[in-house]
Amino acid sequence: MATIANDNGSSGKPARVTIRQVANHAGVSEAAASYALNDRPGVSSETRARVQAAARDLGWAPNIAARALVASRAHAVGLVVVRPPRVMTVDSYFTQLLSGLEAELNRNGIALVLHLVDAIDDTLAVYRKWWAGRHVDGVIVTDLRREDPRLDVLRELGMPAAVIGGDVGLAGFSTVEADMAGITTSIIDYLRALGHRVIARVAGNENLFHTWRRDQCFLEAVDRAGLDRSEYQVLYTNYSAAEGMRAMRRLMSASRRPTAVVFDNDVMAAAALRVAHEMGLSVPADVSVVAWDDSDLCEITVPSITAVEQTPARQAELAARAVLAMQLRGDVSHVTLPAGTLNARQSTRPLRPRRS
Amino acid sequence: MATIANDNGSSGKPARVTIRQVANHAGVSEAAASYALNDRPGVSSETRARVQAAARDLGWAPNIAARALVASRAHAVGLVVVRPPRVMTVDSYFTQLLSGLEAELNRNGIALVLHLVDAIDDTLAVYRKWWAGRHVDGVIVTDLRREDPRLDVLRELGMPAAVIGGDVGLAGFSTVEADMAGITTSIIDYLRALGHRVIARVAGNENLFHTWRRDQCFLEAVDRAGLDRSEYQVLYTNYSAAEGMRAMRRLMSASRRPTAVVFDNDVMAAAALRVAHEMGLSVPADVSVVAWDDSDLCEITVPSITAVEQTPARQAELAARAVLAMQLRGDVSHVTLPAGTLNARQSTRPLRPRRS
Repeated sequence: MATIANDNGSSGKPARVTIRQVANHAGVSEAAASYALNDRPGVSSETRARVQAAARDLGWAPNIAARALVASRAHAVGLVVVRPPRVMTVDSYFTQLLSGLEAELNRNGIALVLHLVDAIDDTLAVYRKWWAGRHVDGVIVTDLRREDPRLDVLRELGMPAAVIGGDVGLAGFSTVEADMAGITTSIIDYLRALGHRVIARVAGNENLFHTWRRDQCFLEAVDRAGLDRSEYQVLYTNYSAAEGMRAMRRLMSASRRPTAVVFDNDVMAAAALRVAHEMGLSVPADVSVVAWDDSDLCEITVPSITAVEQTPARQAELAARAVLAMQLRGDVSHVTLPAGTLNARQSTRPLRPRRS
Repeated sequence: MATIANDNGSSGKPARVTIRQVANHAGVSEAAASYALNDRPGVSSETRARVQAAARDLGWAPNIAARALVASRAHAVGLVVVRPPRVMTVDSYFTQLLSGLEAELNRNGIALVLHLVDAIDDTLAVYRKWWAGRHVDGVIVTDLRREDPRLDVLRELGMPAAVIGGDVGLAGFSTVEADMAGITTSIIDYLRALGHRVIARVAGNENLFHTWRRDQCFLEAVDRAGLDRSEYQVLYTNYSAAEGMRAMRRLMSASRRPTAVVFDNDVMAAAALRVAHEMGLSVPADVSVVAWDDSDLCEITVPSITAVEQTPARQAELAARAVLAMQLRGDVSHVTLPAGTLNARQSTRPLRPRRS
């Protein structure tokens, strides 16, 4: 019966009933519909009952969707990356991401279809084409924006998607993220324990969701550590060595110089060492440096760089697993990985009186 | 007539006549058949005529192959990369390669299907599966080995393939490579002009074809520069920072220390600066350092590193173009890019008397 209701009778293929349609039918938000359909807390039992009734009316059910999909599986998962190639060339995030995705996909005999595009809007056409032609069974979404047009299109298409670095509140998508609050707290508490009070952060792209999340978490960590918000500042960059160097020059040229600088990736932290050298400053005697992403690079510089271990490969692996589970069984999942270790090295040390 | 001869009549799909079959039929080597069929010099006019006759007999022709393929195009090109993930995380070669491939494939609306595998033999099964199911229209081959099992399988399948860093003599494959002799000559001549006579090279993997080619070209450049071969030595590594550091320690601990060291990638060269620092040696006062691959990394280290510009993105772009041309028109092409510029920076300087 549900199967019949789910068949539009024209193409011969069952039409996909989306969570949005169920939500509209039930007169609730998509988020509420998603919570209700995935048996997660956050909605009243009355709403849950109404959503389940709407799902039955429309023929929506995870296992039906799964059955319909199995027949036409592409055995491929898609990844569209919006990134200027120049920035990609040194930053290790992207290769770690690919390694993790491939580890899980290979285990399941699934191919990875990759597209690099110049602008986020180019992604939308790729998603539509992939889904129309069933070139992929689902997609991995990375570098989530604060206002992200990809999510609307994916919801509209009803295409399984796992978001890396996403919010657990994203209705209808599986998400994998790190414990951002835990990481920022470990960085700020460590610097405060070393005596640092004037701290700067050289962040990534301001439009990225995870930059915004880091911003929030850092401010909360600063408050909790009893530091003064006015002594904490943030500069935004595109993650490149060149912009990292510019930001470091600006910070080190200020009348009130920060005594510790946290960089949102390893490349900018390494580039900052060169700026300190060029300006006659010593790291760590004059300024401590922390990198958010640990990598080989942090170990080969002089001084070596104190850094927080990130887990892009592990996050990608779990995201691949999540999108396969969505595609096969309609399961939506949300994973938060524990905060990575802070590996203290030569670039940080207790604050001493400044050289005059 | 040729079309009929090319149809095996059973599957309804034309069978692909391979260059190997033409070669066997004509009683010549595959290389000779490939040269003859692609109108390249290197075979006698008699052989050329015999090969062309065999091709006609069997129904082989580039345009027929192309027509047969167009009908069943996957609109995808495959890349299987054999690389331990740990090594991939800092080396920028791989991301540049992907950028270049994607640039050309995107222009043509072709997807890139990517697989990372642990061992080269795992590649063979992927190729067979891809070709049997027409998941891709052709493949890009990178990190060619001296004895490479992939080429035999690709020949057997008759699958279009473009080899990056390949030899122009590879029959049946399109190839793109850099002018290796030009690059090695520019490095050796520059170091000789600075007065260096004892030169070491920290190379990549000894089993890779391009490592072997570099070996040959360096020896020839050493000879041409009038240097003594016995004063030139090579250590092999896996391209990682850790192995680069080990090699540098060994070289700097020798009784007859090289005064200049050339590294086969940027990461090892950067890591060597740390080893020099740890051993109380100055770069460039005690030892000059050259990196084969230029990158952001070479600009942010202290001292900055003299490096040769490589063009992995450009090579990949041309390889993608080549494999599409093979798939559409049966064209086999061989491109040699001009030698990249040597960007002199702070890590090299004229040889001075050693500190005692």
